[in-house]
Amino acid sequence: MAIRYPNGKLYTPKKETETKKRKDYSFSNRGKTLEDELSDANEYYLTHEIAVIYKKPIPIQVVKVDYPSRSSAVIKEAYYRTPSTTDFNGVYEGKYIDFEAKETENRTAFPLKNVHLHQVEHMSKVVKQQGISFLLVRFSAVDRYFYLPFDQLQRFWDRMLAGGRKSIALAEFEEHAIEIMPKYAPRIDYLKIVNDLYA
Amino acid sequence: MAIRYPNGKLYTPKKETETKKRKDYSFSNRGKTLEDELSDANEYYLTHEIAVIYKKPIPIQVVKVDYPSRSSAVIKEAYYRTPSTTDFNGVYEGKYIDFEAKETENRTAFPLKNVHLHQVEHMSKVVKQQGISFLLVRFSAVDRYFYLPFDQLQRFWDRMLAGGRKSIALAEFEEHAIEIMPKYAPRIDYLKIVNDLYA
Repeated sequence: MAIRYPNGKLYTPKKETETKKRKDYSFSNRGKTLEDELSDANEYYLTHEIAVIYKKPIPIQVVKVDYPSRSSAVIKEAYYRTPSTTDFNGVYEGKYIDFEAKETENRTAFPLKNVHLHQVEHMSKVVKQQGISFLLVRFSAVDRYFYLPFDQLQRFWDRMLAGGRKSIALAEFEEHAIEIMPKYAPRIDYLKIVNDLYA
Repeated sequence: MAIRYPNGKLYTPKKETETKKRKDYSFSNRGKTLEDELSDANEYYLTHEIAVIYKKPIPIQVVKVDYPSRSSAVIKEAYYRTPSTTDFNGVYEGKYIDFEAKETENRTAFPLKNVHLHQVEHMSKVVKQQGISFLLVRFSAVDRYFYLPFDQLQRFWDRMLAGGRKSIALAEFEEHAIEIMPKYAPRIDYLKIVNDLYA
């Protein structure tokens, strides 16, 4: 099954030769995490007035705080909480953007245990409110990036719930997601995909 | 100067008798903080599929973490960081919503020191991206709530920077903001104002 843009246009995946060529680019990720790369992209979008998108702080339950002086507070006991939403959100040309970003060392598939049920539910609610939601996946071992629209994520999620495989194969990303080809600045220009899909 | 909706319609402030009457409502805030009240409103919007709006977690810099067992992590040293954005954001019928909420015990004015420069800058960027941004203020001592559109906040902020007063008088809220009249559910229905302003 071919993937189509919402406007009906057929999406043509990059050819294998182009994919191979990417490896020679001088603007490699230089050991950065996906989070660092997206932070760079968001900083680029912000300073160039293209979009206002931030990573949300990690939710932490604070239990004990010390005040060694009037102006400072030191948290002495706290716990990580499970996030109830996605990592990133913001606004791009009036459009609400909301996504989760994950990287995997797996070379052939993305394990769905990396995504939480409440995150899928949150993304579903966002789409119902006419927001734009997607999963951004980096296959770190092969240095490839994919933008998986939420409706496709939902389909693979439902397949798992129905007893099917608990991961999305790289080959399925090639067919049902849109590959982000790293470029100079920003390296991971995910809003270009949003543009292509929703222009 | 009268306040007008973006569509040119004149905004008519509630009469004093109506304001006084509000005091008799049985659905009082019962000692809740503004944050609790907005959490209630957002929960209402979420469960009724009206909007998906969350308070962002407080940004915390984690310095030291202990792992007493494989499955648990205890944060032993961490510090509060200054937020670079506003408290709340989300999506409402495709529109990006981004706002800051503050309460003051002051009976006659809202001190602008409660808002940070980088928050005003963030809200300005949001509005440039066609997002909807505003300041929600509760005058707790008199139990009154105001929705101050960002362009008005910007005007009072600029007045301060030009050497003018460092606060916004309650009387100025009455003239340039929109009062939110508490009702049953949700008590603080701020999206009604968004509706009125942007419908």
